[in-house]
Amino acid sequence: MDQGSPPTVAVPTHPVRRRTAIPEATVARLPLYLRALHALGESGRRTVSSAALALGAGVNSATLRKDLSYLGSYGTRGVGYDVDHLVVQVSRELGLTQRWCVVLVGVGNLGRALAGYDGFASRGLSVAALLDTDPRLVGELVGGLVVRHVDELDAVVSATGASIGVITTPAGAAQQVCDRLVRAGVTSVLNFAPTVLNVPVSVDLRQVDLSVELQILSFHEHRKTRA
Amino acid sequence: MDQGSPPTVAVPTHPVRRRTAIPEATVARLPLYLRALHALGESGRRTVSSAALALGAGVNSATLRKDLSYLGSYGTRGVGYDVDHLVVQVSRELGLTQRWCVVLVGVGNLGRALAGYDGFASRGLSVAALLDTDPRLVGELVGGLVVRHVDELDAVVSATGASIGVITTPAGAAQQVCDRLVRAGVTSVLNFAPTVLNVPVSVDLRQVDLSVELQILSFHEHRKTRA
Repeated sequence: MDQGSPPTVAVPTHPVRRRTAIPEATVARLPLYLRALHALGESGRRTVSSAALALGAGVNSATLRKDLSYLGSYGTRGVGYDVDHLVVQVSRELGLTQRWCVVLVGVGNLGRALAGYDGFASRGLSVAALLDTDPRLVGELVGGLVVRHVDELDAVVSATGASIGVITTPAGAAQQVCDRLVRAGVTSVLNFAPTVLNVPVSVDLRQVDLSVELQILSFHEHRKTRA
Repeated sequence: MDQGSPPTVAVPTHPVRRRTAIPEATVARLPLYLRALHALGESGRRTVSSAALALGAGVNSATLRKDLSYLGSYGTRGVGYDVDHLVVQVSRELGLTQRWCVVLVGVGNLGRALAGYDGFASRGLSVAALLDTDPRLVGELVGGLVVRHVDELDAVVSATGASIGVITTPAGAAQQVCDRLVRAGVTSVLNFAPTVLNVPVSVDLRQVDLSVELQILSFHEHRKTRA
């Protein structure tokens, strides 16, 4: 998309203007940069070139430089980006420097897997409550949390201050659970149930389809057979 | 990226040239188009405009038209794309018109969730075997399959003809399991363990980070608080 080398001097832009200008596609790539940066940091790297960071994140260099320019990060010619500094910048932009409480509805296998997922805590995300409609699950200890009944959702959201709801119910229950989450005051919803949900325009909704990556691998297998 | 309206007449390109030319970023979006098309089909729609399909898939219209042009699909001006025809085209391009066997290693909560995931079968993906190292799990019936020991991996891959391996083990075990999958003949690996894996260049590797979507929602929550 963009062309040319990164300038040698960082040019700060007005914060408000910068913030409103970040495209959604850039936001979606920031977690990939953060993961690559964490891996570099763990291996002891202090600086990284845009080419190496782009490779680690699976994007092209021009896209990476453009994306990071929205954050006011331009790197230094011949040196690249400072890893620790960029971790802080990307984390701050993603809001990960503060802790977000998440309530999760649907304590099946996927809900349990997410409740115990190591990748959340290190990203400032905290699963604050687990809820289910099944009375046999209510009261069970899962990932250090006592499962609550969905009827307690309002109280749980109030008490935890949770703003993000995660839905890991069967598809048939997902819309009803989503409506209850929104009524309880949640303003972002992450849906793992394989169904399309409707939310008010004020609520951010993201959908995870666990089969997408397998479909991409299917493409590669298909390509191999016809090569 | 591209500009202009879609032409009214489909212009078939040479199949071999077309196939080698599809960019990886386009491949990664094809499953999104397929999901949106399935949703349209289920709601009874026969045709769809590029704008409506782009909205359903969460991309911009120009990108969508460009992507579909790689498949030889240009739509018809004033009518759009034929939903059923496009489902077949995208499915064929992704290799989903044939069935791919998947072996899954790591029968924890996430492995069980994937073993029972509805979204696979409808996409031509079949979980053919579940394996684990834990002797207490071996022999257990999960999602209609008897859990096998990882030591049987070679035999299982041979017997099922599986070409795709899914890793849902803890991070510490993932590289070893990956090496065993590759030795057994698997040529694509999907890794859910939160760690970076190394594979030979002949093997396609995709990494799923379950925290990415939550980080994107974190951005939106962060934006709301400073709005």
